Amino acid sequence: MIILGIDPGFERMGCAILEKSQTGEKLIYSACLISSRSDLHEKRLLHLAKGLKKIIRDFKPETMAIEKLFFSANQKTALKVAEARGVALLMAAENNLKVVEFTPLEVKMAMTGYGRAEKDQVRKMAQAMLKITDGKELDDEIDAIAIAMTCPAKNYTQGRA
Amino acid sequence: MIILGIDPGFERMGCAILEKSQTGEKLIYSACLISSRSDLHEKRLLHLAKGLKKIIRDFKPETMAIEKLFFSANQKTALKVAEARGVALLMAAENNLKVVEFTPLEVKMAMTGYGRAEKDQVRKMAQAMLKITDGKELDDEIDAIAIAMTCPAKNYTQGRA
Repeated sequence: MIILGIDPGFERMGCAILEKSQTGEKLIYSACLISSRSDLHEKRLLHLAKGLKKIIRDFKPETMAIEKLFFSANQKTALKVAEARGVALLMAAENNLKVVEFTPLEVKMAMTGYGRAEKDQVRKMAQAMLKITDGKELDDEIDAIAIAMTCPAKNYTQGRA
Repeated sequence: MIILGIDPGFERMGCAILEKSQTGEKLIYSACLISSRSDLHEKRLLHLAKGLKKIIRDFKPETMAIEKLFFSANQKTALKVAEARGVALLMAAENNLKVVEFTPLEVKMAMTGYGRAEKDQVRKMAQAMLKITDGKELDDEIDAIAIAMTCPAKNYTQGRA
C-alpha cells in the first residue's frame, strides 16, 4: 500500500510517500512544498495544489494520511493552514484517495507510545525507524513521514470524525 | 465586468454572478452550493469545487469577491469554512480570476453606509437595489450578491491584506 502523508501548512506543506508491505515500511519520497511569500494568497494555494497533484501522479498513493487541525495561539495562521488543508483534501477527493486523519496525539502515540512526547522525539523515532540520515530532511517532511507511518498502525477503515 | 461573489461555507456556499457596467449593475445568476452531510468530508469539498468550476465556466467572471473569515464562537466550524474558502480561492487561481477580499464591515458599509447594520438590512438593501423578489433566494445567495455588489464600490486595485 502506498500512503501519502501530509503535514498541512500554507507556507510549507510536508509531503511523504511511504510504502507499507508485509515486510515493513519504506520511505519512497519526501518533500516540502514551499509557497512564495511574494505571491498572491490564491497563487500560493495553487502552487501547493500543483505540487500535490504531481506527487499523486508520480507515486499513485491509495491513501492520504493528514493531520487534524486544532487552534493555535495564532488564529490568523490557523485559518490559512485550514485553507491549505482544504486544498490538500480536494486533491485527495479529485484523485480518489482514501483520507485518514490523525490528531497530533495519535501520531505521538503511534511513533513513541507516549502521548506527551516532544515533537523532536517523534522526528528522531521516524528517522531511526526508516534509517533516514539526520539533517537531510526539513522538519515538515519528517512530520509528514511520521503521519504516514501512523496510518498503517491504526485500523482506519472504522469510523471517521 | 463580470464578478463572482462568494459567501464561503462548508455546508452551504453562496454564489452570485453580477454584471457591472457604466449603466449600473445587474444580477445574472445566483445559487447556493450545498454539500451533503452524508458525504465524506473531502467529497463535500469536491462537490463545492465542481459547482464553482461550472459557474466559472458558464459565466466567465474576471473577478472573485469573497468574504474574509474571522473567528466565530464555533472554532471547529471556522476551520471547516476556511477549508472550503481555500477551495474557492484555488478555483479562482486555477481560472485566473482576480481575487478581492472584503470584511463583513466593508460589505455593510458599501451596502447600507452603516458599519453596524444588521445582516437583514444588508440583504434587504441588496434585494431592493437589484429588484429581487423577496423569498426567492436563500440567505447565503443574498450574502454572496451583497459581497459581489461591494466589489465595484471599492478601488480594489490598491493593496491587499
